[in-house]
Amino acid sequence: MDTTLRKLPVLASPRLLPAACPPALFLFPSLSMTIDDFTGFARSLAEETAPILRQHFADPGLRIDRKDDASPVTAADRAIEDLVRRRIRAAFPGEGILGEEEGLETGSASNSWILDPIDGTRSFAAGCPLFATLLGYLENGRPRFGAVFNPLLDLFCVGDGRTTRIDGREARIRTGVPLPEATLLTTDLFSAQRHQDGAAFEALLREAGMVRTWGDCFGYMLLVRGGADVMLDPIMNAWDLLPLVPILEGAGVVLSDWQGGDCTQGTSLVAASPDLHPTIIRRLNPASG
Amino acid sequence: MDTTLRKLPVLASPRLLPAACPPALFLFPSLSMTIDDFTGFARSLAEETAPILRQHFADPGLRIDRKDDASPVTAADRAIEDLVRRRIRAAFPGEGILGEEEGLETGSASNSWILDPIDGTRSFAAGCPLFATLLGYLENGRPRFGAVFNPLLDLFCVGDGRTTRIDGREARIRTGVPLPEATLLTTDLFSAQRHQDGAAFEALLREAGMVRTWGDCFGYMLLVRGGADVMLDPIMNAWDLLPLVPILEGAGVVLSDWQGGDCTQGTSLVAASPDLHPTIIRRLNPASG
Repeated sequence: MDTTLRKLPVLASPRLLPAACPPALFLFPSLSMTIDDFTGFARSLAEETAPILRQHFADPGLRIDRKDDASPVTAADRAIEDLVRRRIRAAFPGEGILGEEEGLETGSASNSWILDPIDGTRSFAAGCPLFATLLGYLENGRPRFGAVFNPLLDLFCVGDGRTTRIDGREARIRTGVPLPEATLLTTDLFSAQRHQDGAAFEALLREAGMVRTWGDCFGYMLLVRGGADVMLDPIMNAWDLLPLVPILEGAGVVLSDWQGGDCTQGTSLVAASPDLHPTIIRRLNPASG
Repeated sequence: MDTTLRKLPVLASPRLLPAACPPALFLFPSLSMTIDDFTGFARSLAEETAPILRQHFADPGLRIDRKDDASPVTAADRAIEDLVRRRIRAAFPGEGILGEEEGLETGSASNSWILDPIDGTRSFAAGCPLFATLLGYLENGRPRFGAVFNPLLDLFCVGDGRTTRIDGREARIRTGVPLPEATLLTTDLFSAQRHQDGAAFEALLREAGMVRTWGDCFGYMLLVRGGADVMLDPIMNAWDLLPLVPILEGAGVVLSDWQGGDCTQGTSLVAASPDLHPTIIRRLNPASG
């Protein structure tokens, strides 16, 4: 992994966002991309990646390689990223692509794609179905559309910041659940200790009604589906954060980074119901209170 | 829930196991039940319950009722238990049935069925697919066959104590993974504090390579599939424990209760690879070392 990208918010990267980009260079009228265009494209990718996922999921012989940062990668991650990049290049020539496995491919257009071929590789490799492919579309560097799909679960979710649909039905976070009855999700129990105030995080877990590591992107799916109330990730990369933003906002979820700032400029994510978000931020950052 | 059943190991219940039962009373030649008979019956139930699960899964309108012990139950749990009981009565008249929702139905035969219609009701109700139906067959009170099925995941697992098959393929726990690299699973993070040595449990979590609450029966599925190494449940009922025993043993998993004793006589379960099981028991019970 390019650790520069991990540290630097991708939106600040001059490589991803050419400062000036004359309209004449646009090879595709990307400013007119609609949610229907995006949904159709994402759906075709979901169909094409399904056989790759089926072939490798829960295969005890699947080799898990470690990248430089010790995060896992499999042949399935690489095959899906390769496929999706080829499809983007063919359909949207000139647009930039940032993906987890192959890094940044600068484009000549002002819009770009962001991709995590398997968000939840550890889960995928273990035979747990809580993983998905993430695809985001950025207009002038701002998250505009996002998709999450997992053909093994028949899950297909898209959002545009105003509306979020799962399998075609409008999705909305539930409200009115107080913290002692809330379902709080997080990807990993111990990464907060390395990246944030770990003691405050652990104290919060003990206050919640139910805590589960139904994590990675799937945790956010449970939020927008109305099955959970809080999802926390103390450390994220651009490719597993930005595609979620239009989906979460479209379902009425309040989001910020761990300290309550703009998550699109950060490397963490606190997503919660409007009722709970302010409380969660206070609990996670007792020192700043 | 009948709290007597929770406290008393079901095998010790005289109601479930009529001490003397003349062969003439057997209405079905149940002693000759084969793994193929059992598999065929479980598979037909999986097909019949699939529409009920599909109808209610991830339905935000699904009402979650609380039982006397505060455990959740939904219309789907009740409908599946009712269906499975009717099928057992029709196919195996005279055999006893113990199920989570309707309790004990004594039989005149020495063999009996044990049933959890949805193990993982909290997960099911939240829209997380990590749940399954559990069905066990006891011969003279000993777990003989077990099945775990979740049609939404295309998961179908059966075991007879010697062999375990998932979707027809033989399943086996992996070995040779040391604790600092092991994947440790548990259903809930905080129930050990109420039922066992909570501090020892938490210290063990920090020693493992990866900890996840991919719990309920699904955690045991990951063990037999070779995707995880340890699964811990500090409190269980007969209906969510006994059906798993022939499945875990058939896949080479070592099992015991929390203290290392016979799990079929207890109310907890420690399931691990042969390499790790002794270490796990020592870690969970430091006071007895």
